[in-house]
Amino acid sequence: MTFDLSQTPHRRWNPLRGEWVLVSPHRTQRPWQGQTETTAAPVVAQYDPTCYLCPGNERAGGHHNPQYDATFVFENDFAALKPDIQAFKNDESNAGLIVAESESGICRVLCFSPRHDLTLAKMEVDDIRKVVDAWTQQLLDLGSRENIGYVQIFENRGAMMGASNPHPHGQIWASASVPDDPSKEQQQQLAHFTKNGKTLLSDYLALELKLAQRIVAENEHFVTLVPYWAVWPFEVIVISKRAVAGLDLLTEAERLGLAEMLKTVTSTYDKVFDVSFPYSMGLHGRPTDGEEHPEWHFHLHFYPPLLRSATVRKFMVGFELLGSPQRDITAESAAETLRTALKKIASRE
Amino acid sequence: MTFDLSQTPHRRWNPLRGEWVLVSPHRTQRPWQGQTETTAAPVVAQYDPTCYLCPGNERAGGHHNPQYDATFVFENDFAALKPDIQAFKNDESNAGLIVAESESGICRVLCFSPRHDLTLAKMEVDDIRKVVDAWTQQLLDLGSRENIGYVQIFENRGAMMGASNPHPHGQIWASASVPDDPSKEQQQQLAHFTKNGKTLLSDYLALELKLAQRIVAENEHFVTLVPYWAVWPFEVIVISKRAVAGLDLLTEAERLGLAEMLKTVTSTYDKVFDVSFPYSMGLHGRPTDGEEHPEWHFHLHFYPPLLRSATVRKFMVGFELLGSPQRDITAESAAETLRTALKKIASRE
Ligand SMILES: O=P(O)(O)O[C@H]1O[C@H](CO)[C@@H](O)[C@H](O)[C@H]1O
Ligand SMILES: O=P(O)(O)O[C@H]1O[C@H](CO)[C@@H](O)[C@H](O)[C@H]1O
Repeated sequence: MTFDLSQTPHRRWNPLRGEWVLVSPHRTQRPWQGQTETTAAPVVAQYDPTCYLCPGNERAGGHHNPQYDATFVFENDFAALKPDIQAFKNDESNAGLIVAESESGICRVLCFSPRHDLTLAKMEVDDIRKVVDAWTQQLLDLGSRENIGYVQIFENRGAMMGASNPHPHGQIWASASVPDDPSKEQQQQLAHFTKNGKTLLSDYLALELKLAQRIVAENEHFVTLVPYWAVWPFEVIVISKRAVAGLDLLTEAERLGLAEMLKTVTSTYDKVFDVSFPYSMGLHGRPTDGEEHPEWHFHLHFYPPLLRSATVRKFMVGFELLGSPQRDITAESAAETLRTALKKIASRE
Repeated sequence: MTFDLSQTPHRRWNPLRGEWVLVSPHRTQRPWQGQTETTAAPVVAQYDPTCYLCPGNERAGGHHNPQYDATFVFENDFAALKPDIQAFKNDESNAGLIVAESESGICRVLCFSPRHDLTLAKMEVDDIRKVVDAWTQQLLDLGSRENIGYVQIFENRGAMMGASNPHPHGQIWASASVPDDPSKEQQQQLAHFTKNGKTLLSDYLALELKLAQRIVAENEHFVTLVPYWAVWPFEVIVISKRAVAGLDLLTEAERLGLAEMLKTVTSTYDKVFDVSFPYSMGLHGRPTDGEEHPEWHFHLHFYPPLLRSATVRKFMVGFELLGSPQRDITAESAAETLRTALKKIASRE
């Protein structure tokens, strides 16, 4: 008798974060009597006079957006991080138990398009390419500052993922210290690189391409797959084929490849339940401390909450908060669903 | 000029998990245009014929609940973990990159009361005491089994936290391996104990009692406070005054003290926004490997999502998922709000 991973509870190792994930494949068979989400009506207006991100409109604090026609970046009016914070470190107890320190940084908002009704999935590749360029400029600008150690670029898409406005936009939080998650990834990647002389994600990608079970999409420069250790139901990772440490090191051709892949991933998501798919997405690359970081391998994570339908999501609560991350479907079946959605798009074109 | 933690972004160290939390106190000043939650109408029926947890009713799979009159435990009909899984470990790659192993365990559901309309906040202390007793029995029963390494007891309260049924109940997931979170806490507690000869939480509790800024409630055996490193808006930790490694080691008097504290915490929460407060809550104690674990200090975590009102929650998305945990109000102001709510209860009695 072989151990059937598609039916039997097991745990999988996340080598990128260094932690275990509990997989309970049979669990979606249970009936769902819990909260169902409301599906937002599709946004139809290309311009919304009440939207604080649309061109020409007024934002909080009296600023006016310019009549931008591609991307537009501004300093977050309610930034979680601020520059020029005086340095401070306290350890009231001298026992490492009540410890705070200052954290400075810069938070910006990046509008992806002047069109209020678009999403990455609906934008043209050429226009997504402008988003990739704007990200790169931001990384170079913020990352070159002396007191910025990391630039976290991300997007919260959909009300279910806390986005407070449907206008296509993302955020950039640049901080003095390296945040928790990239810092864990760095530790794991460094250990692998030191031992094997290759990046963790090149070795992993080579294995996945050979096994061909969890691959969702591939182009000349990027591969999208459901990682073996995925936590969110339809989580994917987008990995650059070349072992490149950060977004700023991509060639022109790779930037275009990334834009194409972003279009593919987001439109595939939208096809799964025929709804604008909510997610948090973010870019992970080397810290901006000026070092080379050959151990770092540039990638993007997509964390989408929907599980069974457009209205039934996965809740990360209870055991997930107090015990371990847990998922209800296997990475393999999620990859299969995503590939089917992608085929639907291809066949209608 | 002093550094004002109540106004300036900073980060705080969580010594129990060994990670940093970003605190952005000024952030709630931003207007909220995002998703608002619907407040569920209070449950009024003491018995609901369609509820699969009410006494006498039929559950999924054709089982019938007995006519229980206090607590009632049963095996989860859609368990995330199952006993008697054959042992299995694969590392397809031999490079530590595609690693899975079998995970066996037992998942149970514990009904807190036969009354469909109650919550811990509304139950009598004597009845909550029966819940504490049932937890203890479960820990002893499951924990004594050879292949159970940890017993995670928790409650998801409210639809917002993924509870699929308002009937007062919690869950017990007992697993072969120690889950991620208690395992991190163990590492941190062991390091502290080895160095200082006292548990991390006794040293921390002594400091907090002296500072008296974040204490919410105290009785003879337990203290509830907003930890310095809290992530969720009104997160609290309930710490046993005696350095005791697990629930099973509590004295009769301490069990009663815990029941009283559970009543205090949950009814205080309900007063904050005058609504049945959603949360995930769980007990953390030593693993059930038969060792003493003098480094472990028994405690409970409450993770409630509401931030500004009964309908505006904190979203753990974007930066929180891809960067670091982040909060918008200080632990000190949250403690103040909770103390005010508690005073309101006291003055009306
Ligand atoms: O078992 P329940 O209550 O149906 O499900 C709930 O709690 C579980 C354990 O925390 C989670 O994995 C589920 O996502 C959540 O909806
Ligand atoms: O800045 P926004 O979009 O208003 O806010 C959203 O993203 C932030 C960064 O991920 C989170 O901290 C907030 O909880 C979320 O609602």
